[in-house]
Amino acid sequence: MNKFTISSIGAVHNARKTPEDDYWGDVISEIKLNNEWSMSSLDGIESFSHLEILFLFHLVTNDIIQYSSRHPRNNEAYPKVGIFAQRGKNRPNKIGLTVVELIKREDNCLTVRGLDAIDGTPIIDIKPVMNEFLPKGEIIQPQWATDLMAIYWE
Amino acid sequence: MNKFTISSIGAVHNARKTPEDDYWGDVISEIKLNNEWSMSSLDGIESFSHLEILFLFHLVTNDIIQYSSRHPRNNEAYPKVGIFAQRGKNRPNKIGLTVVELIKREDNCLTVRGLDAIDGTPIIDIKPVMNEFLPKGEIIQPQWATDLMAIYWE
Repeated sequence: MNKFTISSIGAVHNARKTPEDDYWGDVISEIKLNNEWSMSSLDGIESFSHLEILFLFHLVTNDIIQYSSRHPRNNEAYPKVGIFAQRGKNRPNKIGLTVVELIKREDNCLTVRGLDAIDGTPIIDIKPVMNEFLPKGEIIQPQWATDLMAIYWE
Repeated sequence: MNKFTISSIGAVHNARKTPEDDYWGDVISEIKLNNEWSMSSLDGIESFSHLEILFLFHLVTNDIIQYSSRHPRNNEAYPKVGIFAQRGKNRPNKIGLTVVELIKREDNCLTVRGLDAIDGTPIIDIKPVMNEFLPKGEIIQPQWATDLMAIYWE
């Protein structure tokens, strides 16, 4: 297996101190970049309404990473599915990914809505959402995914 | 800066042998997972129509990573913007991210349409697209992004 080293480019600051499954809709977060080059690296980001935030589930320890299929959230009402057929955090490489709404940028700090990551989470990349990178065609997903997400953003 | 080690979980196999900016729309790729746990890690993925593929721009060397703003594609008709306000490959951590259409799964191999990554690209994560993780509200982007993407998927 090829190994690569990545570095955090910044961190999340918000009121969520512990991992929780649901109710992320109203969470406002600041993403503060931590490098001297951070200011110009954000130039022009204000002209996008939405960003993709890549982060690390830094509290996930290697012993809980999932390598075989299981019930999402350990809920037996959901079918057993593999880790790459769900978005759970106990995954190889521990990478999280969420689209957020950009509220404002000030210097090396972004204020965003809808980031489902706790205070202190390392950020590893930020990409602007472009219409041309959205899914093409109808999106189909299984019923368990719809059920699981019912109150996620409330 | 905090450092983390990640490992490739698989690789891309397709007909694109060298990086090119445009015309990715018809590229069909196979993503082959490389671990003994790969089979059950994909269980249930067939019930999703679209996937988010996270990969590494493995040909990007550290000396060309961009730390200050520049014209996307070095086209002076576009404004200078920071690396996190564009999706270019010469970025810190070299992570690429694209939504693809899942055509089929066979054992540890996914066939997908619309992956803008060349043959041999390391894959670092696969996530199912769920409607609830799509951007909420109207997406706004600058004109240069729309112009840049004009023939990307042709």
